[in-house]
Amino acid sequence: MALEISALVFDAYGTLFDVHSVARKAEALYPGKGDALSRAWRTKQLEYTWLRSLMGNYEDFSRVTLASLEWALESLKIVPGDADKSALFDEYRKLAMFPEVPAALDSFARARPLAILSNGHPDMLEAVVEHNRLRNLFRGGVLSVHAAKVFKPNPATYHLVEERLGVPRALVGFVSSNGWDAAGAKAFGFKAFWVNRTGQPVERLGVRPDAVVPDLASLAEMLAK
Amino acid sequence: MALEISALVFDAYGTLFDVHSVARKAEALYPGKGDALSRAWRTKQLEYTWLRSLMGNYEDFSRVTLASLEWALESLKIVPGDADKSALFDEYRKLAMFPEVPAALDSFARARPLAILSNGHPDMLEAVVEHNRLRNLFRGGVLSVHAAKVFKPNPATYHLVEERLGVPRALVGFVSSNGWDAAGAKAFGFKAFWVNRTGQPVERLGVRPDAVVPDLASLAEMLAK
Repeated sequence: MALEISALVFDAYGTLFDVHSVARKAEALYPGKGDALSRAWRTKQLEYTWLRSLMGNYEDFSRVTLASLEWALESLKIVPGDADKSALFDEYRKLAMFPEVPAALDSFARARPLAILSNGHPDMLEAVVEHNRLRNLFRGGVLSVHAAKVFKPNPATYHLVEERLGVPRALVGFVSSNGWDAAGAKAFGFKAFWVNRTGQPVERLGVRPDAVVPDLASLAEMLAK
Repeated sequence: MALEISALVFDAYGTLFDVHSVARKAEALYPGKGDALSRAWRTKQLEYTWLRSLMGNYEDFSRVTLASLEWALESLKIVPGDADKSALFDEYRKLAMFPEVPAALDSFARARPLAILSNGHPDMLEAVVEHNRLRNLFRGGVLSVHAAKVFKPNPATYHLVEERLGVPRALVGFVSSNGWDAAGAKAFGFKAFWVNRTGQPVERLGVRPDAVVPDLASLAEMLAK
């Protein structure tokens, strides 16, 4: 594919790291409600990042994640045990990569620097990157929106990439499994690759990603051409 | 209740006007899928208002509503007939009020000016207000965020109320059935009344509404004390 790309930047949760283990932990704690809990939690977590950003009332992703967990538990009428909330939250620190990710990242890294740009608090990102021994692979850095005090898809978050990597936006490839994140990146001026893992319709947000792929292996193949 | 309130401002959809007829229309068009469609539509509609506001990429509520409808139809693998989309969209122009609303509004209006502040495009609001013959009741005006070119809960939207009504924010009572809207209004500095029609948990957004009521009749009772 004839795209000039000087750096590849990845979203973290859902794109590199599989959040499925959160649902598994939830199911272990609350049999029959794990799936509903993890879906309500994730939906509310995203809502809170958008709403707080819009209200001009930023709070870091760890707190947003705990606040949304509390909402989700109450919505399902679950009264959590003392240690449940930290046990669920801690799952985010040790998420596994999707199976195709390690090989794809190796392939990407041969051609250009890689980086992460995530809503995650720096501590959460540090932990999950360390857990997966990815530190050396992300030469471009592990960037958190915490530095901009606002969440994606606010342009100030994507601007962190230009600032930290010193690469102009038109030469940045941005990879996300969230359609809205790919749209935000595209609107900012990145080349946007949407990893549509679950066959969702493309988001109607006024821009289209440069490519839609089912997983990172397909993206590696596409970019190697 | 000892609250000094010089003007009462209402959210429209879901607060005054029951969007249930949209689901009924959807069910008539696509038997067995009406409920899923209207829920996916509403969720995506709100997401798009937040995402576009965050991206700095405002588009008016009519277009957002149609774009989210297209997404929702595709997500349910529905291929709509030629006239379906406008038929569904047109439901927004003729929504009915919740049963308790007319009497409650009459009671509110005896003590202070009333207004609407809605995400809706001015044309959509005009139509539904006219349909329900409410024009004379809202002496404070029917305000659309369209004037601010950003959606709720951005503070610029609530600021329209101060600007147009000339009432300082601390003396404005704001009424919404959306917990996040009540939170946004409260964070802005309004007195916020959350009409929790469906027994949802309170939103964890760093502020709490001044009161939570199950419907507008209860609010009328509370404010009359």
